[in-house]
Amino acid sequence: MEKNQEYMSLALEQAQKALAAGEVPVGAVIVYKDKVIGKGYNKREEQQNALCHAEIEAVNEACRALNSWRLEDCTMYVTLEPCSMCTGAIINSRIDTCIFGAYDEKAGCMGGLCNLTDLSLGHRPKIIGGYMESEAQQLLSDFFRKLRKK
Amino acid sequence: MEKNQEYMSLALEQAQKALAAGEVPVGAVIVYKDKVIGKGYNKREEQQNALCHAEIEAVNEACRALNSWRLEDCTMYVTLEPCSMCTGAIINSRIDTCIFGAYDEKAGCMGGLCNLTDLSLGHRPKIIGGYMESEAQQLLSDFFRKLRKK
Repeated sequence: MEKNQEYMSLALEQAQKALAAGEVPVGAVIVYKDKVIGKGYNKREEQQNALCHAEIEAVNEACRALNSWRLEDCTMYVTLEPCSMCTGAIINSRIDTCIFGAYDEKAGCMGGLCNLTDLSLGHRPKIIGGYMESEAQQLLSDFFRKLRKK
Repeated sequence: MEKNQEYMSLALEQAQKALAAGEVPVGAVIVYKDKVIGKGYNKREEQQNALCHAEIEAVNEACRALNSWRLEDCTMYVTLEPCSMCTGAIINSRIDTCIFGAYDEKAGCMGGLCNLTDLSLGHRPKIIGGYMESEAQQLLSDFFRKLRKK
């Protein structure tokens, strides 16, 4: 399997965990030198914490793994376009590349609603949006359909 | 002492702790119903973690204190204008008001470089910028002067 596909599939597995827990299904992994060094899924409701987005969990794990706040040669795979907080975390940690699945036109800050990486914020991650979008979108659609039924 | 001044002084005390630890001196407190429920200072180097900004530490503590990701009637006092990550965290946690000290023209996302709260991101915190700016700026100037001497 192609590497990007393999890692995005792992991010989708993380998103499935969020879905199983009744959370908005978003998952992320961070890869360094062909190894997953951080992963996470949305735990906002479970933890009752606004910071507990998938990307933040993954950045936290990755910084611990490398014992460094600089994640310079790392790639993040995330199933949904990052929000302002998570785009900021990606910029601050100097992640090299962010590959995301579904665009988020309401809150996405890597092209969906706006693109924060266009600002001169010291570091500009490379972005690949819409990668394996249908798989990520399917999870989100399933979640919101069930939510409306309730 | 006027309440805002009292709480910003506490944020400045937090910033002093960062300075003493050799970190960029930024401190924050979050107040709910006239009580400090979250505080933090920049620990990026100590923790080697890109997430460890003062505001993130404070939001984390405040969510635990209220056992809620919604910090709706809370006010954040922070000595430096929040970056993109921290502005996003303030928006995501629905903090009512953010009062900051020094403007950050290089990375501030509440008016200094740009204003993320102008985007339609679901929640728009009220902002008071430049409050007790000289005290906050003095700490930062001292830090960077020492850094250049090294």
